[in-house]
Formats: sequence, C-alpha cells, structure tokens
Amino acid sequence: MFDYKLLAALAAVVEQTGFERAAQVLGLSQSAVSQRIKLLEARVGQPVLIRVTPPAPTDIGRRLLNHVQQVRLLERDLQGQVPALDEQGMPERLRIALNADSLGTWWAGAVADFCIREQLLLDHVVEDQDVGLKRMRAGEVAACLCASERPLAGARSLLLGAMRYRALASPEFMARHFPAGFDPAHLPRTPALVFGPDDYLQHRFLASLGLAEGFLHHLCPSSEGFNRLAKAGMGWGMVPELQVEDALADGSLIEIVAGHPVDVPLFWHHWRNGGQLLERLTRHLHEGAASWLVPL
Amino acid sequence: MFDYKLLAALAAVVEQTGFERAAQVLGLSQSAVSQRIKLLEARVGQPVLIRVTPPAPTDIGRRLLNHVQQVRLLERDLQGQVPALDEQGMPERLRIALNADSLGTWWAGAVADFCIREQLLLDHVVEDQDVGLKRMRAGEVAACLCASERPLAGARSLLLGAMRYRALASPEFMARHFPAGFDPAHLPRTPALVFGPDDYLQHRFLASLGLAEGFLHHLCPSSEGFNRLAKAGMGWGMVPELQVEDALADGSLIEIVAGHPVDVPLFWHHWRNGGQLLERLTRHLHEGAASWLVPL
Repeated sequence: MFDYKLLAALAAVVEQTGFERAAQVLGLSQSAVSQRIKLLEARVGQPVLIRVTPPAPTDIGRRLLNHVQQVRLLERDLQGQVPALDEQGMPERLRIALNADSLGTWWAGAVADFCIREQLLLDHVVEDQDVGLKRMRAGEVAACLCASERPLAGARSLLLGAMRYRALASPEFMARHFPAGFDPAHLPRTPALVFGPDDYLQHRFLASLGLAEGFLHHLCPSSEGFNRLAKAGMGWGMVPELQVEDALADGSLIEIVAGHPVDVPLFWHHWRNGGQLLERLTRHLHEGAASWLVPL
Repeated sequence: MFDYKLLAALAAVVEQTGFERAAQVLGLSQSAVSQRIKLLEARVGQPVLIRVTPPAPTDIGRRLLNHVQQVRLLERDLQGQVPALDEQGMPERLRIALNADSLGTWWAGAVADFCIREQLLLDHVVEDQDVGLKRMRAGEVAACLCASERPLAGARSLLLGAMRYRALASPEFMARHFPAGFDPAHLPRTPALVFGPDDYLQHRFLASLGLAEGFLHHLCPSSEGFNRLAKAGMGWGMVPELQVEDALADGSLIEIVAGHPVDVPLFWHHWRNGGQLLERLTRHLHEGAASWLVPL
C-alpha cells in the first residue's frame, strides 16, 4: 500500500497553503514535512508540488490529492461503523465543480445546513460545464453541477431542476436603445452583456423570439458584476431570476421582452463509488433542490 | 502594412463568436469570411483560430487581436480629429483584467457612465493580480486593476484607493464556534472561507491580531457565492465592505473581531501609448474612484 504519511503531508501543504501551516496542523517540524514531500517525489519519480507561494500541486500531485480525498471518504464511511477509528474527528473535504450562477445564487442556501451538520468542507471550482465534466473525468473533482445530462462512465447524473433566466436591462437602458419598445432592428447596435465565450443564453433567448441578429457585447465573467453592469445601464443580459427578485420588484431591472424566460437544466454528476458522504449530499440536494430551482 | 481586411475578419469571428454572425456584421458571405481567415493563416504560417464552438483565437491569433485593438484605439483618436474618417461609428472595445471583488462591487458604478458616453465595450477578464499583469505584458489586456504597484516597462500605475475588507460571519456561526466571543484557541477547528489559493486576506487579518494559527477552509472562487456562504453560516471570511453594507446594517453578518479591517490597495495599470480613450478612462477612474474606495 501507499505510504499515507507522505500523502497526508502533500495534502496538508496544499490545503494549508504552505509548509509552515502544514507542519502546525500535522504536529511536525517544517523540515519533517519537507522531507516527506521529497520522499514522496523520490517514490513517484517526479515533482508533486510546484514550489511557488502558495505551493501548487503538479498534475501527478493533483491525482495523488484526489486519491487521498477518495480514501478519506471511504475512511469516513468506516468510521461511522467503527467510531473508535476516528483519530481526530477532522472535517472532510469535497471538491465540486459548478457554474458561477449557481454558486452566486441558490447553492449556499441548499448546502449550508448539510455541511454544518456533516462537518464537510467544500472546495468549489467554478467552471463551464464541459470543463467541469473534464475535471471530473480527470479525478480532480468528486462531483459536478452542469447543464449537460450525459454521465461519465462510472458516474450518475441526476436532474435537480432548472435555473430560470430572464433578459433584463435597466429602464434607462431601454429608454436609450428601445425608446418605442423592443425592436429587433436596433439589436445589432445595442450592447448586450455576455458572461464568457461559452455563454449562449443571449442567443437562445433571441432564437426563442425567432431572431438571429448579431449584437455588440461586453464580456463580464462575474455573476454579481453582470448584475451590476445591467443595473448601471451598460447592456441587456440574461440574469438568473433568483439573483434579481428585488431588482424586478423595485423596477431597477425590467424584462426587455415580457414573458420569455430561458430555463437551463442543472444536472448533478457524482461518482457511483464516491462514498456515503457524497451519496448523502446527493440525496440532500435531490430533496431540497425543488425549493430553489424550477421544475423542467 | 498588414492586410486589415483579414485581421478585421478574425476580430469579427471572435467577437461575434462565430462565422455566421461575423459575416452578418461584416456584410460578407460566410465563405468570404472563411477565406479571409484561411488567407491570414497562410500569411502567418500557422492557425489563428481553433475551430471549436465558439471559435477561439490561438496564441498568435490573440496577439493579432490585441494589435487590432490597439490600431482601433489609434484610429479612434484620429477620427476625433478627422470625423469624416469614421466609417460606421461602431463602439470600441477595451480588454481589462481586474480582481473579482472590484468587478462584483464598485466597478460598474464607476465606469458605466463613461462607457455609455464613449460607446465603449469592455471585455472584463477576472484574474489574480500577478496573472493580470502577466496578461498585460503579453499584450492581452489594455489595462489591469490590481494590488501591486510596480508598473510594467512602458506602462504607468496609478493608485485609485483601497477596498476595505472586514472579517465577517453570521450570528449563528459565531454562536456555534465562538459562544463566549472570539477566541483564537478555537480557530484551528473553525472553518474559514477562502476565495482561492492566492487569497491571503484571512492570514493578513489574523496577522493584524498577532495570530498565526492555521485554519480549516472552504474554497469559494465567487464574490457573491462567498457572501452567501458567509450568510448561510458555513464559515467566516474577509468580505468587501462595499458588498455587505445591507448585511452589516441588518445584522445578518457581523464582525468576528470588531474594528479590524484590512485595506487592499488598488492600482490601475495602463499602457503609456494606449491612445486617448484609455487615457480618458484613466482620468475618469482617477477622478471618480474616491467615491467608491477608501483613501490609503
């Protein structure tokens, strides 16, 4: 079997973002931690850490860390059955890839109670859906929340519901660009807000109106920034309804065409053998998601 | 000189996220756009576009796009003096790297009027400060907002002010982890929220209290997500004051130790020969930043 003392040293250095704090947490001297990392590197025959501040895992280092995470999950299951095994009662970590709009809106409300109850720490990775699934395939994340249904081999996907987006702009923006109401003829010279190069929500919205016009755009890869740029009148854009309930109520954002939402499905992808903790989180999300997302 | 018809085709394909829309905007057939791209690739001797959906520039493609952007800025200056040159009156684009917390808070309010008045489109790139400066050096962005003062050769840096962060948590979180008030002895088993591996604000806050304890943490690379995880009681974290004025007023977030803010300076880095539009944006930010940021 692997020497888990060495792997635990690697995990501590990365999680504590440095050798000094890793040594504190492990109750070792800094040079002992350093020796364990060197020994690990001698065994695998290549570097596991890039010595920058903070230390970053190499590709092989990341694979090892993922393995440590999976072993910890399995240990945790066992500890539930054999409590005396539990050395420290330290919380577990799960690394999860998800879309920025979920993390910026309903995610915290959906998972907070579970994490507090289970003493679970989360490493959130914000990724476009395709990249999220790639990271899961590479073993870098334990689960992935994305719009794509098709599960990886060895994994399951579960529909949680959909996020509802609306095409919104400020009243000033509408008065400036569509003084006589929405008019497709003005679209090509009307700036839109686009989250990133993979963001096709604006195109989907226009397609739902039978339009295929090109448009100018600002790029804004931040959920909250997007919302603020829209309120400041810089462009129209597709905003999650969950994020702007207040703004819709007080009229600081209005629909550019009333009653044309775009619903984006959200699938929860998780490994079949990811351990009981991941299964419980999956069940928790499945049960609770309906209160945050719209049914599809 | 370069053949700018070819470069304009490249810019249109990337900006419009596809050949079809690029053709619409340029008033050409799709095959004409495609031929121009092929001709450009024949001239530079390598691909300028990766044929994915949407098409993405290669490294050399990005350099060419940056050149197009700089030429457009210079043309714009000239058009101001010789208005008849202005073919279409199309808006300009500037690509700007900045930190997520600025984009998520004060940025929209600071730049919206300027962008609307000047018909300026912005490509925001969210980056940690070191990466932002690297992107500027590589010619990928025209300006960069970051905490580092030292300008690149050929560029200027300008202090705009500082963002004030406070160490915040929900009242429930405080009751759970610090029932008798803040106690450093509990820190090692109290989860913090950390934005990303380069986020040392928590450490700076603890250092300002004379503490060097390690701590557990959730990772959350989303400003709004961070804020929501804090409100949901999952951890304590350093949150920009600008983002949580309401939460501080209504008590949904409270300081874990009263009166210990951490101020992070923000420097605006811009090329000296970046054109008049960039200079005017710089002046606009310089004049307006005081109303958003705290003085240093």
